[in-house]
Amino acid sequence: MHLYKHNLIINTNGRGLYELTSQIKHHIQTWGVKEGLAYLFIQHCSASLVINECYDSTARRDLEAYLERIAPEGENWYEHTIEGSDDSPAHMRALITPTNLTIPIDDGQLSLGTWQGIYLAEHRQRGHQRQLLLRVLAIE
Amino acid sequence: MHLYKHNLIINTNGRGLYELTSQIKHHIQTWGVKEGLAYLFIQHCSASLVINECYDSTARRDLEAYLERIAPEGENWYEHTIEGSDDSPAHMRALITPTNLTIPIDDGQLSLGTWQGIYLAEHRQRGHQRQLLLRVLAIE
Amino acid sequence: MHLYKHNLIINTNGRGLYELTSQIKHHIQTWGVKEGLAYLFIQHCSASLVINECYDSTARRDLEAYLERIAPEGENWYEHTIEGSDDSPAHMRALITPTNLTIPIDDGQLSLGTWQGIYLAEHRQRGHQRQLLLRVLAIE
Repeated sequence: MHLYKHNLIINTNGRGLYELTSQIKHHIQTWGVKEGLAYLFIQHCSASLVINECYDSTARRDLEAYLERIAPEGENWYEHTIEGSDDSPAHMRALITPTNLTIPIDDGQLSLGTWQGIYLAEHRQRGHQRQLLLRVLAIE
Repeated sequence: MHLYKHNLIINTNGRGLYELTSQIKHHIQTWGVKEGLAYLFIQHCSASLVINECYDSTARRDLEAYLERIAPEGENWYEHTIEGSDDSPAHMRALITPTNLTIPIDDGQLSLGTWQGIYLAEHRQRGHQRQLLLRVLAIE
Repeated sequence: MHLYKHNLIINTNGRGLYELTSQIKHHIQTWGVKEGLAYLFIQHCSASLVINECYDSTARRDLEAYLERIAPEGENWYEHTIEGSDDSPAHMRALITPTNLTIPIDDGQLSLGTWQGIYLAEHRQRGHQRQLLLRVLAIE
């Protein structure tokens, strides 16, 4: 058993979903992991890691629009406004979407479903540099 | 240390929560795992895996109704409508509920709380065949 | 490889976010774990485990208010009211926030981001005694 580790830096250019699937798969293939578990963790409170449809861009745009609506900017009851009007709703969106993911690896492949992709969800208006921790527990 | 693997096929007959607790426990007991971690992953973008109250059916029905309300069908801003009016809201419900779960195993038992059960949440109107990956890391 | 185990009892005094970060770190340091993965699981259907901003109390208060608004008490369509008007919305809040977390451990430290803290989210009005399972897989 071995724990492989890599930290990824992802530069976003503002709100939206950024697909990471091929980057994650690349590391698993480079390490030559055959069986095990992949763990992803994002070290931020205003960005998330989600698995969702990665085939049709209209599905992605609806998800992006949904995140903006489920915790809208500028509600009059927000107290935490010192870091900008988009900061508190970003924390709310991060509250109801995942900070971490666990995905099985089988036969040397990340076992995603046919239409599943891994996205970084940037919840702030401006671009940010985001740090993700990839850990792979390989069963040998 | 050993990684046990089983893929479950669950046939749903439309929207709602389907309890899987006894199926998952059955596999862990069959394998004879005493201590470790159970991982569940669903390979779909319009269904989820949730842990919630499994005792009172009114609690389950309220959760089902809530999922239909938190991302309702037929909003006029939905772009992704080619696969049916229930597809984009299904992705939204899958965005804010889990794709994967991790549950400790202690003394040969899945360590759920008294009222907790594991549900597959089907978010599409029609029934689907859903694939779930169960992995158990056994500490020997 | 070793699996460390500890069950934490957290007493809440009603709705809100309760920070657990230092308690979790304390156990990892006591065990002397250098590299591995920390797993947290809450054995309840009306409380959650979330990672979010732990620096500014206005951010925490906005998150608490958001949880009360995203599944409000007293909707006329709630069927599950026998355990109190706050019970069904508590299950709904637990549906869209995590029951379990997985966090990497590197160089003897829990690898949280600068502003991230671990919270127990109590969703019931009254205080409760909550049980959390901490498991740490140490790579030796």
